[in-house]
Amino acid sequence: MLQVKTPEEVFRLIETEFTPLDRRETVSLDLALGRVLAEEIRAAEYVPAFDRSTVDGYALCAADSFGCSDAVPALLPLVGRVRMGEEPDFTLPRGTCAAVPTGGAIPRGADCAVMLEHTEDYGDGTVGILKPAAPGMNLIFRGDDVSPGKPVLSAGRVLGPGDLGALAALGLTRVPVRPRLRVAVVSTGDELVPPERQPGPGQVRDVNGPMLAALLRGFGAEPLCFGPVADEEELLLGAAREALSRCDALILSGGSSAGEKDAACRIIESLGELLFHGIAVKPGKPTIFGKAGSKPLIGLPGHPAAAYLVARLFVLPLLARLDGREERRLPVRAVLAESLSANHGRMQISPCRLEREGEALLAFPIRSKSGLITRLAGTDGFLLIDRDCEGLEQGAAVDVYPL
Amino acid sequence: MLQVKTPEEVFRLIETEFTPLDRRETVSLDLALGRVLAEEIRAAEYVPAFDRSTVDGYALCAADSFGCSDAVPALLPLVGRVRMGEEPDFTLPRGTCAAVPTGGAIPRGADCAVMLEHTEDYGDGTVGILKPAAPGMNLIFRGDDVSPGKPVLSAGRVLGPGDLGALAALGLTRVPVRPRLRVAVVSTGDELVPPERQPGPGQVRDVNGPMLAALLRGFGAEPLCFGPVADEEELLLGAAREALSRCDALILSGGSSAGEKDAACRIIESLGELLFHGIAVKPGKPTIFGKAGSKPLIGLPGHPAAAYLVARLFVLPLLARLDGREERRLPVRAVLAESLSANHGRMQISPCRLEREGEALLAFPIRSKSGLITRLAGTDGFLLIDRDCEGLEQGAAVDVYPL
Repeated sequence: MLQVKTPEEVFRLIETEFTPLDRRETVSLDLALGRVLAEEIRAAEYVPAFDRSTVDGYALCAADSFGCSDAVPALLPLVGRVRMGEEPDFTLPRGTCAAVPTGGAIPRGADCAVMLEHTEDYGDGTVGILKPAAPGMNLIFRGDDVSPGKPVLSAGRVLGPGDLGALAALGLTRVPVRPRLRVAVVSTGDELVPPERQPGPGQVRDVNGPMLAALLRGFGAEPLCFGPVADEEELLLGAAREALSRCDALILSGGSSAGEKDAACRIIESLGELLFHGIAVKPGKPTIFGKAGSKPLIGLPGHPAAAYLVARLFVLPLLARLDGREERRLPVRAVLAESLSANHGRMQISPCRLEREGEALLAFPIRSKSGLITRLAGTDGFLLIDRDCEGLEQGAAVDVYPL
Repeated sequence: MLQVKTPEEVFRLIETEFTPLDRRETVSLDLALGRVLAEEIRAAEYVPAFDRSTVDGYALCAADSFGCSDAVPALLPLVGRVRMGEEPDFTLPRGTCAAVPTGGAIPRGADCAVMLEHTEDYGDGTVGILKPAAPGMNLIFRGDDVSPGKPVLSAGRVLGPGDLGALAALGLTRVPVRPRLRVAVVSTGDELVPPERQPGPGQVRDVNGPMLAALLRGFGAEPLCFGPVADEEELLLGAAREALSRCDALILSGGSSAGEKDAACRIIESLGELLFHGIAVKPGKPTIFGKAGSKPLIGLPGHPAAAYLVARLFVLPLLARLDGREERRLPVRAVLAESLSANHGRMQISPCRLEREGEALLAFPIRSKSGLITRLAGTDGFLLIDRDCEGLEQGAAVDVYPL
């Protein structure tokens, strides 16, 4: 009863079966990078808070410069100097000017600023204006950038450095964000030993545990690794139940033993509800999605390359949904460096290396017969080949999703 | 004496004036995500360490299946079962078979595995093979993936989850990486107050400090923020000297006061050697590069949007050079949603928002008169417009560099 879903069906099901968790916490600005904004941010202040000059030069009333030229400068007495970080303590009388630095506050009475390059300081308390100015020239007015109530950042935004700069400018140093999702990774397989241990005959090191933990950490979730747990259903169910109670989502990463996939299915059915077993992709077909209340239950294939690609392609969007994130899968446009065949009736996920060659970005498909290391190490991204496509020619333009 | 460089000259100068720092440290696998590999990694073991089956089924000698079919199965006595994580304790005699799970070790004497689906277990200790097999079929041999000495990851690689998976598989749980670069950010400007403080009249909050710190942290460096320091040259020189002594690189982020850019220049000349003052880009022209021994000294424009874009475009590649990183600027291909003008004789760096519309990714240029918030908040990337290009039409295909 493998109810195989197409990738599109899986993405739709993520939308219909799961909803963003209604949780928030507050973090300081210096810890907010990469966090998910829990609510829309609106400005509560005017930025700038005062009329500012955008040039080094002189503030004046534009009308006093009308008709001037290099040959016949407008001669204006210099009545003050604006200092950075201070409000001018004078009002500019008509027919005069004041020195003002870039970013400095414009004194009352002035309605423009003239660049230093278009002026001449005669050193006798008089400044010559060599080019006529228009009102508003070289000024930013109070609130030009934002004023109170203006939406600045949307809920669900993953905060980048520029966003944090904007929050700093607004004085919002306590940021409402989503708590990091806690995701349990339970590795299972009789043959698995922890990576730091030397495997005995017939044994292999647990790759999926540390790899999925890193993927989750890079995504901004908090991984909790359990195992490797031996392939005994009762043992595994106990470990899964315990893990789920402490986390927002559970990933079962299977070993490769016979019948183990059914075990993962049975465990997911014991913990909650099975949504589907099987996605029409290669690799990654034996992927399981289920849920226990609002918590996703995921069974990943045991093969590390398959587990990695499926987790990136389907599990991260699911976690993004729980986070209420704006999800962005931004592919990079590359040129296929070698032909690539595909005729499986399933969408093919092909890992590749990327190399720049002059202006072009070349995608080299990583070919490997069930390879472990060679399909993981040095992999830069993957491309998707449609189920109906029999392959891609060398030189084809492809979209590569960075890993 | 503004020696303005083109962007290409700046990138070349980064290569010629700076070299990777020869330093390394060792971190555990769970802390290695995003770190820069300090040396090439070669396999020290065979992976897999033993001949393994890639299917659930039966191990046998292929010759014993020749000529069989659904109608006339090859009948082979079942002489054993391979268990996951164990080495088979028997040798397979010719004319027999052994059950083997996916990933299980192949017993001596067998040279292929036949999928369960192509067999029939008669339940009397005999298995029928319904399809002839070829030697090597459904096996991965010891060392098929990697063998000792094979290069697995290059020095300079920024480690991703898949790379960590490969290291785990090889038992390399102590990873040689570059120490994180320590980068000092000194904000200067008489008008600046820390973001958490309410600015007085004529004052503004320091945006560049927290923003650049986040950019550096996201890059994998360790930012140390100093300031805001008042625009007094001696004070600033003292702060810069102190900051530099504790870090691998120094960024001076100017306020906007008159003559301040020259002050940054003089400070950089006091600390070391001025490389250039000015890059032919808009925004960001008044950028300064210098060096004190192997340490870069950088003066960034005071305007936050300019500082952000210049830091992303020029400072991160410089830090990548110190790290010995494979640098990858991977643009995403988007469609320009609105026309964008540019005729400045300088390369234009245009920030934009990205929005998906069906299959297409639309880039909306962010327009704002010297805007602060509006050019930082919600910015997803930037595109570059060549100095000789007067603008781009709506609908043009553009490369957007994610921020």
